[in-house]
Amino acid sequence: MELTPIIGNVAAFLTTVSFLPQAIKTIRSRNTKQLSLPMYLLFVTGVALWICYGVSNKQLPIIIGNAVTLLLAGTILVYKLLEESHEN
Amino acid sequence: MELTPIIGNVAAFLTTVSFLPQAIKTIRSRNTKQLSLPMYLLFVTGVALWICYGVSNKQLPIIIGNAVTLLLAGTILVYKLLEESHEN
Repeated sequence: MELTPIIGNVAAFLTTVSFLPQAIKTIRSRNTKQLSLPMYLLFVTGVALWICYGVSNKQLPIIIGNAVTLLLAGTILVYKLLEESHEN
Repeated sequence: MELTPIIGNVAAFLTTVSFLPQAIKTIRSRNTKQLSLPMYLLFVTGVALWICYGVSNKQLPIIIGNAVTLLLAGTILVYKLLEESHEN
């Protein structure tokens, strides 16, 4: 079994699931003060475009991985936007 | 000019640069309380593995994009680790 695809799969898994602990922390604390709004706006937009890219190229791993990331990072973004709107 | 590679490049650009505003915010505030340590540990490890994957596959865009992300997310992780160590 070749090592390179395994490295790619582990890398994709780690960068995807990494947003799970941040999402849990954000949902529990409901505190997003130190989270950057521009970061999550840019990141969620980028991940949505990755899904478009995956759909266009018919690459299911790209679609699934980014759909999970979109769900997690999107949740964090919603909490951030809710906090910003409460402050104004 | 085909649309799909453009979408892929814009997606890669956005998900890469998204960590810049978070890194700036973290460096300025030196406050990482709401940032998840497991997120940045998993993410930075994943990005480092993406670089290994890019080197192994000789894919320069993967190497460069992830090197930038590693620099930005790695900076945030260092600040988080410094804060954690001060608390203990």
